[in-house]
This record gives sequence, structure tokens and C-alpha cells, in this order.
Amino acid sequence: MIKKVLIANRGEIAVRIIRACREMGIDTVAICSEADKDALHAQLADETICVGPAPAKDSYLRMDRILSAAYATGADAIHPGFGFLSENSKFADLCKKCNITFIGPSCEVIDKMGNKSEARKTMMEALVPVVPGTKEAVYSSKEGKEIADKMGYPVMIKASAGGGGKGMRIVTSEEEFMHHFETASQEAKNAFGDDTMYIEKYIAKARHIEFQILADNYGNVIHLGERDCSLQRRHQKMIEESPSPAIDDKLRKEMGETAVKAAKAANYCNAGTIEFLLDENNHYYFIEMNTRIQVEHGVTELVTGIDLIKEQIKIAHGEKLSYKQEDIKIEGHAIECRINAENPYKNFTPSPGLVTGFHMPGGKGVRIDTALYTGYKIPANYDSLIAKVMVHGCNREEAIAKIRGVLGELVVEGIDTNIDFQYQLINNKDFKDGNIDTGFIERLLKK
Amino acid sequence: MIKKVLIANRGEIAVRIIRACREMGIDTVAICSEADKDALHAQLADETICVGPAPAKDSYLRMDRILSAAYATGADAIHPGFGFLSENSKFADLCKKCNITFIGPSCEVIDKMGNKSEARKTMMEALVPVVPGTKEAVYSSKEGKEIADKMGYPVMIKASAGGGGKGMRIVTSEEEFMHHFETASQEAKNAFGDDTMYIEKYIAKARHIEFQILADNYGNVIHLGERDCSLQRRHQKMIEESPSPAIDDKLRKEMGETAVKAAKAANYCNAGTIEFLLDENNHYYFIEMNTRIQVEHGVTELVTGIDLIKEQIKIAHGEKLSYKQEDIKIEGHAIECRINAENPYKNFTPSPGLVTGFHMPGGKGVRIDTALYTGYKIPANYDSLIAKVMVHGCNREEAIAKIRGVLGELVVEGIDTNIDFQYQLINNKDFKDGNIDTGFIERLLKK
Repeated sequence: MIKKVLIANRGEIAVRIIRACREMGIDTVAICSEADKDALHAQLADETICVGPAPAKDSYLRMDRILSAAYATGADAIHPGFGFLSENSKFADLCKKCNITFIGPSCEVIDKMGNKSEARKTMMEALVPVVPGTKEAVYSSKEGKEIADKMGYPVMIKASAGGGGKGMRIVTSEEEFMHHFETASQEAKNAFGDDTMYIEKYIAKARHIEFQILADNYGNVIHLGERDCSLQRRHQKMIEESPSPAIDDKLRKEMGETAVKAAKAANYCNAGTIEFLLDENNHYYFIEMNTRIQVEHGVTELVTGIDLIKEQIKIAHGEKLSYKQEDIKIEGHAIECRINAENPYKNFTPSPGLVTGFHMPGGKGVRIDTALYTGYKIPANYDSLIAKVMVHGCNREEAIAKIRGVLGELVVEGIDTNIDFQYQLINNKDFKDGNIDTGFIERLLKK
Repeated sequence: MIKKVLIANRGEIAVRIIRACREMGIDTVAICSEADKDALHAQLADETICVGPAPAKDSYLRMDRILSAAYATGADAIHPGFGFLSENSKFADLCKKCNITFIGPSCEVIDKMGNKSEARKTMMEALVPVVPGTKEAVYSSKEGKEIADKMGYPVMIKASAGGGGKGMRIVTSEEEFMHHFETASQEAKNAFGDDTMYIEKYIAKARHIEFQILADNYGNVIHLGERDCSLQRRHQKMIEESPSPAIDDKLRKEMGETAVKAAKAANYCNAGTIEFLLDENNHYYFIEMNTRIQVEHGVTELVTGIDLIKEQIKIAHGEKLSYKQEDIKIEGHAIECRINAENPYKNFTPSPGLVTGFHMPGGKGVRIDTALYTGYKIPANYDSLIAKVMVHGCNREEAIAKIRGVLGELVVEGIDTNIDFQYQLINNKDFKDGNIDTGFIERLLKK
């Protein structure tokens, strides 16, 4: 079995992975930046190596230093978490060349699914429904506009290398197209060093529904049900739940089977996520595959009982899947709220700084994944996510009541957070009724 | 439905009940002593009434004041929690007379099961196996000794009104009998105002196995599997788990059916616990019934998914049980460690005082029930239990690994706690192997 894992990440996901390894009897190596020396993940690991100064490009993205740290500590595997190097095929390839197990899919699969237009093509060939749009990449605004005009507005411009909403624009009319295409491709070039774009029909009032996949090295693929991640602001998820209030058993079965087909078409191995848009008429369209663990994986763990990080490690070690599709039972309802260090009333400005007080609620059906502690100084250099508050109830109504209670008890002092904003979302009548789509929060903010 | 519940308790169990009510849309009234004005339960409830100075007899045991508080706030039900008035039949009766729903069984049942020799008699008549011993109460040491001599040593002297180890003695030889009987009955008189005693055969190397029961007003009774609470010090439980490593499905079914029979014989209603001793040959003997929620109810909630506090409230309201016996599935393995403010290396001396730092771990399968917060001053007047740390793993091995991790991460500063001691217990080879009995901790401490 894998004996020592280096975690090439920080914050709560690093803590999550450290805990899973510890329970499996696997030693852990944390890496940290100079700004993260007091971070919880750096304190909890068996060993910690500082890999450079705060900017991620000088530390958490430095493949050479991370591989050196793995070599120096004798780590035989690397877990990339999410973000940073998790979907970097070069890093996966380098790990392989260094004879270190990359806990994730192969570099070829990361490449194929990371390129959004390539992924679309693969899915179309496998007869997985995709959002109507370009099959090939679009290289100029002129070419793009012709396609969009023919398709009919609104359309969505997306960066092939995209993620996290970067390089993405909704275009509602012909006149806006050129401007949006230029700014989106410029943004993509800056963010990913790649301005290849593609164009899709914009699906109005859509839900974001994603299926969790587990696949082993022997061609076995299962899905663990869906997560409804429709509550987003600027394509950043804020609340996730499982199961989706919009999906019945029949549709779950159909979409789940499609997700498995998609993963097989990608020749996928390890944990991954197939993302769909679901329109008002229950038509669904593949949008992309995430070839890593997701921020919101915990809601799936709550309703299935399965530990996805441990499964990732076992699969990477070469074990066969421990579950068959018929073993997967979705029980009760789980909701996650992402708690960010930001001020929702000042346009969500990040609010790093010293946490002078922190009180975490607990009790039945409550799970909190965080790397916060009283006295911790949140650095300004990273994502503003500071805690994931999750609950598991016997049904959606109980889960909503539970998370409302948890948000009411949660105390983070010294910095601004979105706790009150999340509390308002949870209490919103349309949310309670399950009437949500990806435009919900933006519409709410405009009121 | 019940609209407002007064919680006649304090600490983590009061917080637990407040949360359950809140999720059910029921308003809550906390009571507190003058020493508990800053306590978490007093802060979380919708209303809080101070019912007197610190000694429990002047506040948490003052039935008149508690009923006045219920009347003044318009509470239509009272949840007694555990300890304090939870097994006081007079209080249950007074509630009834005041037209307030007592969330627990009737005063008649509390009386019958609270009197240990009466309970024994009821069970013997229902053909529930009991520890061999006196059927009737014993009123003098002379009478007791004759019985013990005939029975053969070791024997156990117990107070009829007993609980929490008070008025209880193991007598290993004829010579010791008179002395132990006198001190035990004196202790019982002081603690319970009742020195009625009874005598049982002492079961060596026994496990403490208890079955959780739910019973409604319509004669429906189910069990929710067992808890193994063999790890005790001076009859105070320290670690509890479910399922028991000593019980297979066949024995679980048999003991569970016996527990249901016992509850029916007692004409029981609401949540209750049937406690058994299990000897090395898998013979089991009823020892007592607890007519209230238990400290360790959470481990049953983790393996069954059922919220016992909510079930208690629903039953008290007159609802039928929402589950049938065949609906109850035991999934995975749960362990609880009780965290006490005490110093295990100074004979477990209580260690109240200011909590200067508190860090609570979280993550998958971790549940912590506590009323602690940083800056809270633990009063010297109450039980030393400050937190219940629980985990849920897919099997016993994973649960042990999980709770070891949680105990390693848990930080309570400013006072002494038994966290390190619990950590040692969890790492003990015999515990890991499941080789435990009620004498385990005492033997360990003698080493």
C-alpha cells in the first residue's frame, strides 16, 4: 500500500486529506508557503516542507520544489487536492516520470478533459448530449460571430482551458458579441496562457447538476448520485446539495448512466465529476468534466457514506472499486454552505486577517471542514474559502432547518464573512421551494 | 404539535435538545442557575429563566420554580434531559397535573423501573433473565449476609434507588460483607434518601450491554440495537460503542427481542434503555432500565440515523412510532469518548475553571456534542462532563482510527481534561481487539 502521501495543497482540503491518510495508517507530508507556516495543515501533517514565498506561482505551483519535497521526504504518492496543480497534466506526467503515484487520473485524460472543446468532441462522439454549439475550437471573433448569429442569441462564450468562470461570457445580442469575445479571450490568455475559445447556446434558467464518478484501473465505473450546485455567484458555487430537488429517481438513473458513459468515453480513472446543465424541460447537457476531487464532495459523502478521498487513494494504489452501482444508496439530504472571508455587502471584497474568535457548532448531522482556529491569520494570497459547513438531514426540509441552525450558531470574529448572506439564502422562499437556477443569486443581488 | 419546550437541564444535553426543537420549529425555554448565566444553553434558547443559585437542589432540582418558569413562558412541554429530575416520578406527575407534557414515560413507569428491586421483580415475572439474586428488597445487613452466604461470593450489593454507581459494592468474601453493606446503605440513604438494598450474584468479566428502546402510546415497541458501555471507571461510563464487538446478529436479535419484551412488561412509553450484563459465555442478565435519554444516545443515532430526541418529542405529543423493527438498520460503527474536566493522574479530581482555548476538530464522520466555548468558565458545581466526542466509521477499525485522530486534534486549554487518558485507552491493544469488560479500566489503573 501507499506509505506516505505528500499533499500538494493547503487549507481545509489539505486537512481533509491528512485526516483520511491518518485513518488509513498512511504518513503525511504537507507543503506550505512562507505565508502558511502557521496554517493548520502545516501543523497537522507528520512532516511539513516550506516550498517558497506566498504567491502560488512561487510555492504551491512550483512543480520542481514539490517533487523535490516528495523525494526528500520519501513520499511515494502526491494528492493534489483541488485548484493549484490538480488539473495540470504536466504535473501528473512529471510525478509518473519520478515514479511517484499521482492521486488522480492519467495526464492524457487530464489533457483531454481539461481542453473544453476536446472534451465536447469526445462526448459528442460518445452520444452524450452536449449544449448545442461549436464542435471545433474558434480562433477569431469574426468566425465566432458568424456561428453565434446562426445559432441565435443568447450564447455563451467559453475558454477551452477555462474554469472558475474565467474567460466566460453570456452574450444576449449580436451587437455585444465582438466586445465580449475580445475581453473573454484576453482574460483566458491571461489566466491560462491559452485563448482558444468555443461557443455554446446559452441555456436559460438552467440548473447546474453534477454527477460524482468513481472509476478504477480495470474499467469499472460507478456514479454516486448528483449534486445540485445551481446557487452560484459569477460561476462560483455558494451552496450545494444532494440529491437535487429537481431530479426524480428515473431522471437520476438516466443522467447517472449518461455520466458513467461519459467517464468511460474519457477512459477515466479515479474520482471525477461530470457536470451537466439541466433546463426547465428536464433536458440535460454535458458541460465539462472535472478530473479531480471537488470542493463540494462532502455532500455526496454524507448521503452515500462513502469516503471519496480514501477511495481516490485506493484507486491510485491500483485497487479495484470496493462498490458496485447497486451498492450505492442515497440516504437523506445533504446541504453545504461555503463560508468565505469576504464582505457580501461590499461587492464580496475578500477580507483576510486575524481571526480573533471562532466558535464551531456541532451535534447530530453536522459536519464542518475547515482549517480555521482562533488566532489564525488568514493570508491575503489565497482563495477566500475558510470553511465548508455541511449538514445531513432525513429530508430536504430537515437539512434546511439544520443548516439554518448551524449558520446561526457559527461565530467567526475579526474578519468579514458571508455567514449572514448564506443565512439569508437559506431562508429565501424560492430556495426552500427548490426553485433555483444558476441565475438565482445574481437576480437576488440586483433586487 | 408541541409549540414550546422548556429544557429542565444544562450543558451539552440542553444544547442538544434546543437544537432538535429548533429544527422542528418548536420554541425553547432554557433554565439556568445563577452560576450558569453565561452557559451556552442559556444563550442558545429563545428564552432563558434563572431558577436559583448554583447548588442543584436550589435550582435545577426545584420543581416549583421550574414549573413556574414553564407557566410564565407558556411552555407546553418539559424535556428533563438526563440526571437532575429526569427520573423523578413526582416531577413527571406534577407536570401532568399542571397540564404540561413531560417528555418521558409516565410517573408510574418511572416509579416501577426506578425502584431496582421492583424492576427486577417485574422482569422475573416477564421471564426476562435477571442476575441471580434477591427477588425482594433486603432491609438488614444480617438478612443480606445470610442470602449472600447461600448464594456464594463474589456478590454485588446494590441500592434499590441507585444509579451512577452510588450505593453499590462488590463483596468478594464473607468477612467483608457486613462492612460493605453498612457503607453502601449509608451512601444510598445520603444520595437517594432511601437505603433499601438488594443483593445479586456478581458476574465476573462481564460486559455492560444496553439496548435502546423506542415505545409509543399505542403499544408499539422497537429496539435500535445495542451499545457496549463496558469501559467504566467506578460505574461511570467512559467510552461507549455501537455495535458491540462481542455480539453477533443472532445474539443481537435475541437480546433485542428480550429488551422489547422487558419494555412491554414495564408498560413503557418513550425512549428508554434496557441494561444487561453479558458474561463470558454469552449469557445475559437484565440489570436495570433507564427511563430517560442516555448520555451515550449519540452512538445509536450515528449507526441508525434516527434522531432520538425528536422521536421522544413526537412520542410525547402522541404520535405513533415512525419506524417498524424491520426499518432499523445498523450501519457502520460508532464510538463515543466522554471528555471530562478532570485530572486522571490525580485520581480524576475535577478541574473546573476558565477555558482559555478550545479547538474542535471536524471532518467526515465526526460529531461533537458540547457546550464549551473559548472563554467559558466551567462552574465547580456540576458533573465534570464537558464534551462528547463521537465518530462514525464504516467498521470498528476505521472508527478507532477516526477517534484517535479526533482526540489528537482536540485542544482544551486552561483546565485539566482526560483527553490524553482517553487517547491511551483507544490505543490499548485489548481495547483494539475488543477484549473489554467492566473491570478493564480499574485493572489498567492498578498497573
